[in-house]
Amino acid sequence: MTIVLGGNQYGKAETRVVRVTRDGPAHELRDLNVSVALAGELDAVFLSGDNTPALPTDSQKNTVYAFAREHGIASPEEFALLLARHFVGSQEPITWARLDVEEYTWDRVAGHSFVRRGTEVRTARVTHSAGGTHVVSGLKDLVLLNSTGSEFWGFATDPYTTLQETRDRILATAVTAQWRHRSAESDWDASYPKIRDLLVQTFAGTHSLSLQQTLFTMGRRVLEEHEEIAEIRFAMPNKHHFVVDLEPFGLDNPNEVFFAADRPYGLIEGTVLRDDIPTAEEAW
Amino acid sequence: MTIVLGGNQYGKAETRVVRVTRDGPAHELRDLNVSVALAGELDAVFLSGDNTPALPTDSQKNTVYAFAREHGIASPEEFALLLARHFVGSQEPITWARLDVEEYTWDRVAGHSFVRRGTEVRTARVTHSAGGTHVVSGLKDLVLLNSTGSEFWGFATDPYTTLQETRDRILATAVTAQWRHRSAESDWDASYPKIRDLLVQTFAGTHSLSLQQTLFTMGRRVLEEHEEIAEIRFAMPNKHHFVVDLEPFGLDNPNEVFFAADRPYGLIEGTVLRDDIPTAEEAW
Amino acid sequence: MTIVLGGNQYGKAETRVVRVTRDGPAHELRDLNVSVALAGELDAVFLSGDNTPALPTDSQKNTVYAFAREHGIASPEEFALLLARHFVGSQEPITWARLDVEEYTWDRVAGHSFVRRGTEVRTARVTHSAGGTHVVSGLKDLVLLNSTGSEFWGFATDPYTTLQETRDRILATAVTAQWRHRSAESDWDASYPKIRDLLVQTFAGTHSLSLQQTLFTMGRRVLEEHEEIAEIRFAMPNKHHFVVDLEPFGLDNPNEVFFAADRPYGLIEGTVLRDDIPTAEEAW
Amino acid sequence: MTIVLGGNQYGKAETRVVRVTRDGPAHELRDLNVSVALAGELDAVFLSGDNTPALPTDSQKNTVYAFAREHGIASPEEFALLLARHFVGSQEPITWARLDVEEYTWDRVAGHSFVRRGTEVRTARVTHSAGGTHVVSGLKDLVLLNSTGSEFWGFATDPYTTLQETRDRILATAVTAQWRHRSAESDWDASYPKIRDLLVQTFAGTHSLSLQQTLFTMGRRVLEEHEEIAEIRFAMPNKHHFVVDLEPFGLDNPNEVFFAADRPYGLIEGTVLRDDIPTAEEAW
Repeated sequence: MTIVLGGNQYGKAETRVVRVTRDGPAHELRDLNVSVALAGELDAVFLSGDNTPALPTDSQKNTVYAFAREHGIASPEEFALLLARHFVGSQEPITWARLDVEEYTWDRVAGHSFVRRGTEVRTARVTHSAGGTHVVSGLKDLVLLNSTGSEFWGFATDPYTTLQETRDRILATAVTAQWRHRSAESDWDASYPKIRDLLVQTFAGTHSLSLQQTLFTMGRRVLEEHEEIAEIRFAMPNKHHFVVDLEPFGLDNPNEVFFAADRPYGLIEGTVLRDDIPTAEEAW
Repeated sequence: MTIVLGGNQYGKAETRVVRVTRDGPAHELRDLNVSVALAGELDAVFLSGDNTPALPTDSQKNTVYAFAREHGIASPEEFALLLARHFVGSQEPITWARLDVEEYTWDRVAGHSFVRRGTEVRTARVTHSAGGTHVVSGLKDLVLLNSTGSEFWGFATDPYTTLQETRDRILATAVTAQWRHRSAESDWDASYPKIRDLLVQTFAGTHSLSLQQTLFTMGRRVLEEHEEIAEIRFAMPNKHHFVVDLEPFGLDNPNEVFFAADRPYGLIEGTVLRDDIPTAEEAW
Repeated sequence: MTIVLGGNQYGKAETRVVRVTRDGPAHELRDLNVSVALAGELDAVFLSGDNTPALPTDSQKNTVYAFAREHGIASPEEFALLLARHFVGSQEPITWARLDVEEYTWDRVAGHSFVRRGTEVRTARVTHSAGGTHVVSGLKDLVLLNSTGSEFWGFATDPYTTLQETRDRILATAVTAQWRHRSAESDWDASYPKIRDLLVQTFAGTHSLSLQQTLFTMGRRVLEEHEEIAEIRFAMPNKHHFVVDLEPFGLDNPNEVFFAADRPYGLIEGTVLRDDIPTAEEAW
Repeated sequence: MTIVLGGNQYGKAETRVVRVTRDGPAHELRDLNVSVALAGELDAVFLSGDNTPALPTDSQKNTVYAFAREHGIASPEEFALLLARHFVGSQEPITWARLDVEEYTWDRVAGHSFVRRGTEVRTARVTHSAGGTHVVSGLKDLVLLNSTGSEFWGFATDPYTTLQETRDRILATAVTAQWRHRSAESDWDASYPKIRDLLVQTFAGTHSLSLQQTLFTMGRRVLEEHEEIAEIRFAMPNKHHFVVDLEPFGLDNPNEVFFAADRPYGLIEGTVLRDDIPTAEEAW
């Protein structure tokens, strides 16, 4: 038996870069958090502290800033592709790169003035190696709530079940969604707002019998409308809103007053995909 | 010398209540975090564990929910006033109440569907005692950025100063503002969005020589436009965006690529008020 | 009526400095988060953007690092005193300084190796002006729990009270305590661990009829044992541990299984002081 | 082409349970955060909102509490095994369960009094299906620092490299480690403190040429000493401590004053395993 090094990666996480484009009458702003992960022929670094093959994570950070200047930030996906290809293409020992980008969105107030919008964050993950390139776009912390149009009944029961069935409840969640593109070329900035809005509209428009059903419907709609998307994955917490029992105070509560709970929460995770497109675990 | 009890208060903090109004064709939603603090003749509770004068914090929580049902939530301020007066009015030992309310705002997607808006939170603080009632409205985490129109030069220097003067920098902040009303009666929901927008527009429209100057201008504009406001207080972190030095890579950086720093940050705090209205420390 | 500038202050917040002393066979480590707030003749900065009197917050940050080198960090209090006196003493317009320091503690593993201890943070606040100098030491996030020896009964009730009396409950809290010293000269590092331990031991040793009573007893003990302390202030959340109702599953629950709740929570705040020492609001 | 449901799971996340054992002269305390994820024949729930096969997450929460009473909490691993086997064994559609447990540790102050220890959290992950049972123990947020004995030089460079080589730097990290046991039967509470201490001692005792080398050494030592462990995985951020340049102030800085940075940070991830034991991706 020998003790050996298994899978490994390294990189600079959470480089915060804000890129202002000052060409036109109004400035453009892109505000990103960029994380780099690299892998390849790096065993010596781990086994003996021989750093010869290791480009410092500090250089990776510098590259993020320099590329923002040289190439601009067309979109999170484009910028991630550029960086991923650069690291694999320019560093001989590096055979694989994964770039994770978060984008914080701002609404324009005036030409050069902006206000941070929303709690939601746009995300992009690019993986690149000789084996292929994958682009996964997404969002997180998109908080949605339906104040009616949600039921939950007919579920399995066991000796530990006390939950009552309901034909009308609040359904609330904070959507994390990630959609894998068929191709590494697309109009990323065009598709993002469409998919984001489709998720919101489908959540709103679906009479829900379970959060699972809502999740699947959201995914199905995205795939129906977006041929360029191969697969979409969701993590959706059930942000419980409990009807407060006001009977002790002589009051009824016809679904009007709720306690918004923090923990615990239900957590529903699911993938929606096409049966004729191969999966690609290496993209995630 | 005797060891004695000084100032004290107690209450239930962070009761999360969501109130749905289901009367009309579209639901209305108010989503609050309510904190109660009470004071009065409570020394026995501290000195000997005699709980006779202490209404449990659990009862305070119940009251929040019951009042949401009985009275609805007209606005954070109105709801806070109702609760503050109730506790002082109904509990003999309680002579002072302070209610702090945070409101999370939602945008309507459809009749019964909502999406959480913004990072910003609306706030209200009500203090009530025989000595008077004060209402302080406000907001926090309103994140603003000007990509130009901000200078910083002519400052004091000392042997520890290395900062370069600049005629063009990014100015970014997360505004916390609290404005004290002259009266405990007002149309709170009408004034809030006006003041919020005035803060945003003034930040955007002010050519800044210092964040302090921007702060004062924001406050002055609110007092000019809103006769009903006696005083406004700000805490505004200077969310530094540093121009990245790209010279080592043969690149210039004409204010286009920035590092958005987390810590440390400048912190500017200031009050803007009218010289003919008495201050009211007890309101804060 | 004129609109005027009221109270204001500015400074650099959250400068993170780690100071290693390498003199002896084993290194010494102090790990601080330093926040500076300054006030004085700074109206011009706010009113007209004339920065002449304003030492940049960047210079303040530099001073923190330079002083750590020049003077070392004898203790959070000593370091804060040094900085407060420096800013008031060297910058003509600055007449008041407040230094807030957090210290993160590390346990030594070996001569030059350390492991972060505890969730608790040591704190110090120094205020300095021509009017006087105040030192307030403290801690926060000291999380304590008694699994028995805590009662809560005999409390006031109202129509919204449903809480049951209990003769045996879990009592848990996260102590924030701040104690004001009589003098600006003391052996800060000697008194801190003694007071910290006295707080822990008193919490553990007090049969509690209310969290208020425990709070007062903790404060009283500190003042009894520490002549050098003028006053101590507490904020202690009641971190509720609810006995889970297991009857639906045919199980009893003799105070063995608890749900540790996040929100809402009771919040008890109180001051314990000596009746022969003047209060000093300006210290806080 | 058909749009289909792919991988999915659901469950109750973050059920907070505190278990007090009151048998002996001193109470025993276990403080857990339990997350359940279940999978199986659940397609109907997603596809049509037919909840027949879905045991509510509320029932899962109840089971956590009831089992804490009925069976006690021998260890995070034992409790997770019990629950995983229960859900798969009792719910016909459920064929797979994953239990994630965090344990918060407390130090005893006196018989029934405790103080929260450390920032670090003990973790356990159990996966169970007809295909097998896996136990992964671990910890996170174990914050370690060496104030010397760390070098970094001889690394790869590219046009974006500005980092200087160093023969003496601070090395600091927050260890996340997870070790997979060969067997689902072990003395979990005996091995945990041994492995935790071995990680701390190895970090302290390793003269480091790179954080990667330290990581591998830590893993190797655990496998050498613990025959029962098949594999260990690490995620170790490089918590950068930068030597502050004090030259502008006429001061040297012989590795004594550091800026502790938040973001960005290096992130090193790696696996150490035995070459004669099959990997088990399904355990993670």
